[in-house]
Amino acid sequence: MAENERSVVAFLGPEGSYTHQATLDAFKSSRFTIAPQTTIEDVFGAVQSGEAYRGVVPFENSSNGSVVFTLDLFADVQGKYPGIIVCGESYVAVKHCLLGYAPSSSTSQEAQAQDPETPVATPLYDISKIKTLYSHPQAWGQCKEFLGTYLKHAERRDVSSTSKAAEIAAQDKTGESAALSSVIAADMFGLDVLAKTINDKVENTTRFLVLRRASSEAPSTLNQQESGQEDVQGHDWKSLVTFTVDHANPGALAQCLTVFSNHGLNLTAINTRPSGVQNWNYIFFVEFKGRKDADKDDCAVNKALGELEKLCRGYRWLGSWENRLIEG
Amino acid sequence: MAENERSVVAFLGPEGSYTHQATLDAFKSSRFTIAPQTTIEDVFGAVQSGEAYRGVVPFENSSNGSVVFTLDLFADVQGKYPGIIVCGESYVAVKHCLLGYAPSSSTSQEAQAQDPETPVATPLYDISKIKTLYSHPQAWGQCKEFLGTYLKHAERRDVSSTSKAAEIAAQDKTGESAALSSVIAADMFGLDVLAKTINDKVENTTRFLVLRRASSEAPSTLNQQESGQEDVQGHDWKSLVTFTVDHANPGALAQCLTVFSNHGLNLTAINTRPSGVQNWNYIFFVEFKGRKDADKDDCAVNKALGELEKLCRGYRWLGSWENRLIEG
Repeated sequence: MAENERSVVAFLGPEGSYTHQATLDAFKSSRFTIAPQTTIEDVFGAVQSGEAYRGVVPFENSSNGSVVFTLDLFADVQGKYPGIIVCGESYVAVKHCLLGYAPSSSTSQEAQAQDPETPVATPLYDISKIKTLYSHPQAWGQCKEFLGTYLKHAERRDVSSTSKAAEIAAQDKTGESAALSSVIAADMFGLDVLAKTINDKVENTTRFLVLRRASSEAPSTLNQQESGQEDVQGHDWKSLVTFTVDHANPGALAQCLTVFSNHGLNLTAINTRPSGVQNWNYIFFVEFKGRKDADKDDCAVNKALGELEKLCRGYRWLGSWENRLIEG
Repeated sequence: MAENERSVVAFLGPEGSYTHQATLDAFKSSRFTIAPQTTIEDVFGAVQSGEAYRGVVPFENSSNGSVVFTLDLFADVQGKYPGIIVCGESYVAVKHCLLGYAPSSSTSQEAQAQDPETPVATPLYDISKIKTLYSHPQAWGQCKEFLGTYLKHAERRDVSSTSKAAEIAAQDKTGESAALSSVIAADMFGLDVLAKTINDKVENTTRFLVLRRASSEAPSTLNQQESGQEDVQGHDWKSLVTFTVDHANPGALAQCLTVFSNHGLNLTAINTRPSGVQNWNYIFFVEFKGRKDADKDDCAVNKALGELEKLCRGYRWLGSWENRLIEG
């Protein structure tokens, strides 16, 4: 790529989505062209083909768990994305808001002092006229208390993203439609924020991963260079590995996991998905603290992977990146 | 319960769903009243309260993986279902069909001999008039090849179940609507089977679990007594356990899993879900071959659970039941 060409960062769109926000957080520099994609697979495809320099995809939500579409693309049963690895992560606080058109006669109300026993957000306007709600299916479960308190009888319609929900609600000027969506979407579609942070768990957070081609250049401190973020975690790294085991061997999985602890590598997450090859066989996803270093054969991660190779049926290292989780 | 009273079996409805089929497979006796529920949580609730003698819920699909709603109800963060345990399982082959009204002028065509390179089901009638398709969101991904070959331009509408899809398609007598649904739903709503077994992987299978209250009586060979099924697996049992670990201890998960292999208990599945207590902490679901026996302190499962208790933060045994998987 020429020095003066702007690099493309592909992300799961549309604009106004939480992935968009994660992308803007991770790539602040004017060096980048931010390009929305329709599906998570489109992001993988754009990075694999080289159309995009980097890709940003949702990976895990603190309440809803893993994004299985992303896991299945990493598992890559059909061998379409052999060059994809992870080179960064980004955490975004999910703060759903109720968006719509405020009644013209009403003015914004101060949120009342709340009973600490029932910490439900208070509407900023009269929302009694709302008859139809739009949102992504995951959002209903995240806003149960607010909806149960104020919008019990409104009809709920599933749409493909919280951003799309805001776009649809914006088309109904009667004030009878509203969306569970983000502040960024309110600005984008000219809607009023009728209630702020209406999710039950205010610490609801989604983790996004940054993808690159293994063959592309890897800045040694990627996020810092690209985004200007401070390296708040020092030199704390995480790695992702997938592997399959011989299901006929009772201890195979435990043996594989013991390899990591034997080398002092703390597992931070484990996931399983159907292997895609044989029913009721699984592929395991293990994330751990540590960094694979191409230059050092004797680093703990390299040694652990060498031992894993002898115990598992097959494994794949899917990248090492700087940890961005601020542990409370 | 009085001897002559019919026991209620609650299942995730509606009638005509794959869970309905699993329920009829597992409870063949005329002793039972089969009662559809609206949500998986309603099934848990009916069993916990004693309204239902047994409950049937989907647990895992061979292509799509675990049903996270069911996992979260077993995790039971709010302590609503302390009495629920698993006492049986049932496997149902998912054979999606294309259901609709056959054109009056056309007669059923014999499926042509298929090219073994492209094993896509062949429509039994002319389906070129179909403009709108209804199904459960999971079904689209399971029937990609058929839809890509024959119904590329039909609009897809998500509905809450494959059975509901058939019900909606049945209301459009023009022949322009069709559903991806089951044979049982074709009978129920008077639709024609326009194409059979249109899923890409013909071995697509869903596993269902049978729930009971721990305090209810447990027949020693439950499925055999209740359903008349032959005990094809001899005395092969499976058990489900959930546990949480100290995330600050790098080897905790591997140590917990090693307990099972040390006692010769083969792990058949492992799952994780957010703990619901603290972000990025997880609850682990482990399924293994073996049976907890209340009468034998020295059985392998009892010994393993005793050791697990010392290594984990907390654990819960969620039942032991006869294995119904016929391994190929």
